[in-house]
Parts: sequence; structure tokens; C-alpha cells
Amino acid sequence: MKTIRTFFILLLISGFFINCKQAAPSEASAATEVKEDPLPSWNEGTTKTAILDFVNKVTTEDSPAFVPVKDRIATFDNDGNLWSEQPAYFQLFFAIDRVKGLAEEHPEWNNEQPYKAVLENDMNELMKLGVHGLLEIVMATHSGMSGEEFKEEVREWLATAKHPRFKRPYNELIYQPMLELLEYLRANEFKTFIVSGGGVDFMRVWTEDAYGIPPYQVVGSTIKTEFDYNKGQTEIRKIAGIDFIDDKEGKPMGINKFIGKRPIFASGNSDGDLQMLQYAASNDHPSFMLYLHHTDGEREWAYDRESHIGKLDKGLDEAADKGWTVIDMKNDWKVIYPFQLTKN
Amino acid sequence: MKTIRTFFILLLISGFFINCKQAAPSEASAATEVKEDPLPSWNEGTTKTAILDFVNKVTTEDSPAFVPVKDRIATFDNDGNLWSEQPAYFQLFFAIDRVKGLAEEHPEWNNEQPYKAVLENDMNELMKLGVHGLLEIVMATHSGMSGEEFKEEVREWLATAKHPRFKRPYNELIYQPMLELLEYLRANEFKTFIVSGGGVDFMRVWTEDAYGIPPYQVVGSTIKTEFDYNKGQTEIRKIAGIDFIDDKEGKPMGINKFIGKRPIFASGNSDGDLQMLQYAASNDHPSFMLYLHHTDGEREWAYDRESHIGKLDKGLDEAADKGWTVIDMKNDWKVIYPFQLTKN
Repeated sequence: MKTIRTFFILLLISGFFINCKQAAPSEASAATEVKEDPLPSWNEGTTKTAILDFVNKVTTEDSPAFVPVKDRIATFDNDGNLWSEQPAYFQLFFAIDRVKGLAEEHPEWNNEQPYKAVLENDMNELMKLGVHGLLEIVMATHSGMSGEEFKEEVREWLATAKHPRFKRPYNELIYQPMLELLEYLRANEFKTFIVSGGGVDFMRVWTEDAYGIPPYQVVGSTIKTEFDYNKGQTEIRKIAGIDFIDDKEGKPMGINKFIGKRPIFASGNSDGDLQMLQYAASNDHPSFMLYLHHTDGEREWAYDRESHIGKLDKGLDEAADKGWTVIDMKNDWKVIYPFQLTKN
Repeated sequence: MKTIRTFFILLLISGFFINCKQAAPSEASAATEVKEDPLPSWNEGTTKTAILDFVNKVTTEDSPAFVPVKDRIATFDNDGNLWSEQPAYFQLFFAIDRVKGLAEEHPEWNNEQPYKAVLENDMNELMKLGVHGLLEIVMATHSGMSGEEFKEEVREWLATAKHPRFKRPYNELIYQPMLELLEYLRANEFKTFIVSGGGVDFMRVWTEDAYGIPPYQVVGSTIKTEFDYNKGQTEIRKIAGIDFIDDKEGKPMGINKFIGKRPIFASGNSDGDLQMLQYAASNDHPSFMLYLHHTDGEREWAYDRESHIGKLDKGLDEAADKGWTVIDMKNDWKVIYPFQLTKN
């Protein structure tokens, strides 16, 4: 219980601080498409070569590194790995927007923290309220309704909310090179999973359209639920209370629980993914560990060891130590987002 | 917490009583295979027709009942629904055999309950020890080791243990007609899932070979785990403590958590499956609810309203009320187990 609480506190704290360093977006560089290239948005270089070599060796039947199809499990973190996570986890923007949307039904919120701080956009005050205030926001905006109602809220939010920097729906800020990687792995008979600290119900609404990853291949954090018979119109109701935090040690534990097999390919971008990569690294099969290093302050964001969000410190050291592959976003990626492709 | 404990107590109690009514196995009746028949081990009749009609209407694009591929979720209970569950849940035999196998390392067990009762095959004494005794057996035999070690134990047990009546490995006592149904649904682009009160790690060892259902499509009960870095050879260790009981209300909650979509096809055989069928019944899409009624005391077992294992009482009433489909094992199935097919 103590560990769970620690994770939760860490998650909320890290999700809370708003990272204000950002640069203006620039035009994406031209994505020159080579025929038959499965990763056209990736520049040639050691990163791309390492990925292609790994997939090639584990799918070549007479290779000593061959891995049977049923064991080709690939797990991907989501925030900062398949889509952006700056200036704060996108799910936090959703929670804040939900508070604002519900304010009319709750006139008392105008004088009650943490809601008052959210409604007044007073981030300093919100920070002072700490974990308890944030917990209250998450619970107030993610519980007390059926799973179906919650999904509908997420759908509406995605259809209307805009990212503060790019002025586009949040689910357009997904990484084009990672879409190609997912597709390439699936073409080689990998099963692709998301394993994220984000809320599973929040992600499942849009991950199938965005990444081609169906709801039952999304592992994430969960809050408690109850079964409501509701005169035969049965529902699952989301209730206040943390069920599972899918972060740090929670990631391999979540993989064990939901997937039941060790990944041979694990991809993340922060220290919260380190245990997942370690878990893949000790697979009996050959395995591939991939870190995304945010080095592109111009087209996306540059952050690592000191960041409050997506901190990558221990992971960077361990990757260097163990020879894991590290994507240098600025140099390895020709383009960041799909909407930038159409400009070329 | 109270609810979880209640489920657990019910599960253990129901798993405990050994149902001694059984009949000798007989030769399977001839399975006359009609060409192109997707369900050759099913006799013609209302049950088979109802299944074929449902699948036909939800997969016909110009039908008003058409369901898109991504929503074709089918969930199956396991014990007594895909394989037999008499004279007791097979996982209980595994736990008992584990106690016997570990006895040499634990000489103190010869004088300590509940182990003494297991070692002396004293079922009456074991029953007197009740829930606590059984809880201790489950924890002692399912925890304190890595997930990989546990799987190896299950594998060895399946390779050596024999069912008391049929004198065959337990995983040969799977239902041939249900194998055909699973395959038929998958051929029609359904995703097939197991949603069982059984332990998920116990099932995942063999469900892929037995049913073509991979580990990540198996939802079941779980015990607690911890992540062990183990000098870089990371492991998930199973520890004593209940995490989730996938029974009754737990089934729709488990479906919501692991699958994230309501089933359009739900199949079970006991009152423990009733909530799962209710959940499917209130899908916005057309849905199909299927109960297996154990009516064949000669070829398998006959039990329903009064059984300690796989009790089907409320479910039978609700199925009649709502017009759900009920398989009459004796009359609807030409053959029970795959090994009986080869005799014809």
C-alpha cells in the first residue's frame, strides 16, 4: 500500500509541475520517402539500423536469434513516447478542463480549493495545495460516472480542446516516426501494447484510431470500479479510489498481469519506464530496449535529467552502460507529427 | 474490501466441496462431419441454429444487426465451460498435488493443518478447517516464487497429473464443441477471451495450445506481486495476498479493466457468470448470451441448481426469462472431449 501511494504521489507531483520551457514550432524538414523503406520518417543512422537489424534477426527463421511469433511482444510507453507530454501530461489538461466544465453545477467551487485555483488559473496556488488537491481533482473528474459516460467526456474533450502551443487537438500531437515503428513491428507479426502511467479509460478512447492499438492492448493506471445492475441496464461505475498505478515497478507488474509475457521490445522515454526496459532486457529471448531522448527544443521540446515531467536521468546512464538504443529526436527524426507531413 | 472477501470466500467454499456424483465415461457418439459445417460436433437443433443465426446477422454488412469487427468481443468462462470442473476445480487438484510435492521440504507439515489433512487425503478434516485452511493452501502453493517458476510448476503438473475419472491429463478434458465454437467465432473476426475465476497465471500456461487463446486474452483472478530487480535478472515474484477475484460482479469489472469493451457474445455455465451475461445483454449492439447446462451424467456430469461446484440456479431462471440460449449438453453435443473424436 505504501509503495502504491508513493507511486501515486510521484505521478501526481511529476504531472503537476508545468514545464514552461518551450520553443516555437518550426516547419518539419522534408520527409523524403524511400521506396520499401518501412521507416521513412527516420534518418539513416545507428538508431534506425539497430531497429531494422533487430527485427530482421528475430524474424529470420534460420537465425539463432529467431523468436516465435507468439513471443513477439512489444510494449510502448505513451506520454512523451507516442505523443507529446509538454507543457504537462495531456490528461492533466483534460482534468482541468473538466473542472471548468463542471463548475456551473458546483457554485461552491468558486470558494473551495483546489477548484478555486483551477477556475482562476492560479497555478501557484494549486501547487501549494499539493498532492491532496490534485488527488481531489482527479477523483472529482474521473469518477462518479459510468465508464461509458467517461469515454463520452474524453471524446468531446478531444473534439474541442486545443493544445496551448500547437493549437491542435491533443491527439494530433502523436509522433509520426513512432507510428511507422508500430506499423513495422506489426507487419513483422509483433503484438504492440501501450504500457503507460496514464489512465487506461482515458487512453482507450482514442488509441485505436491514433495508433492502431485496440483497447485490450492498452495497459494503464486504473481507479476503482463497481458493478451497477441498474435495472438490467448494467454499467461499470468509476468510483473514487486508486486501483493500480502503472508506473516504475508497476510497469513490469502490469505487463505480467495484463499481458502475461515478457516483452522482447520495450520503448520508453523516462525513468518511469526503466523497470519495463530492465524487464525486457532479462528476457530469455533476444530483446531490444529503446529510449526516446527529447533533444529537439525547436520542433518539439528538449528535456531530460532535470525535467519535472518525463525525467530521464538514471535511464540515460543505464542505457549507456548496457548499450541500449537511444533515439536522438533532433537528429534521428525527419518529422515529428503527422500533420507536418502534409506540408512537405 | 468486504465484497472482495465475500467473493473469495464463496470461491474457495465452492471450490472446496468435492462433488462425488459421477458416472462412468462412455464412448462418444459418432461425430458425423458435414462438409462446410463450422460446428460439426453440435447436433442440429435450436441451440446450433441460434448461434449460426447470430453470427450470420452481426457479420452481414447490410444487416441492421451488423457489428463492426473492432466490437466483436466474445468472452468465455473456463471452468465447466471450456473444460470440465468435476469432481472439483482442476486448479484445486494442482494445489493439493503441490502440497504433496513440497512436503519433503516441510517436515513440519506432517503435524500442521491444513497440510496434514491434505497429506493424509483427509477431506473431512480439510473441510472442517474451512476458508482459512484453504486460503493457506492456495497461498503456500501459488506464492513465494517468480511467475516463471510458477509456470514451470504448472507445466510439469499438466505433464504428469491424471484426472481421477478419465485417467488423462487435465488439459485433455476440454470440450470439442466449444473448440469449434471458438474457432468459428475467430473465423468471423471475433476476438475470443477467457474470463474466469481461475488463477490467471495457472491458465495462461496452457490456454494458447488448448484453445488458441493467447495469454493477453486471458482474464482471471490474481494474487499480489512484487518487482524483484534480482541483480538485473528482473523477475515478478508472486506474494501471498489476493489482488483480484474474477467472479460474479468481478467478471464485468475484469472485462472493463482488461478488455475495455463490452462483449457481444458471452458464454458461461454457472451463477458466477450471470453478471457477465447481464453485462453483454445490455450492450448497445445486438448480443448473444449462452449458458452451458451440464445435463450429461453419462458422458460428463449432470449438475445445476444444487451443485456445490458450478451451481446454475439463478442463471437458469434468468436465461428462461430473457430468452438466452442454453446448451443442453446431452442433446446438443455429439461428443464431449477431443480424444473421443479419434475413436470414431
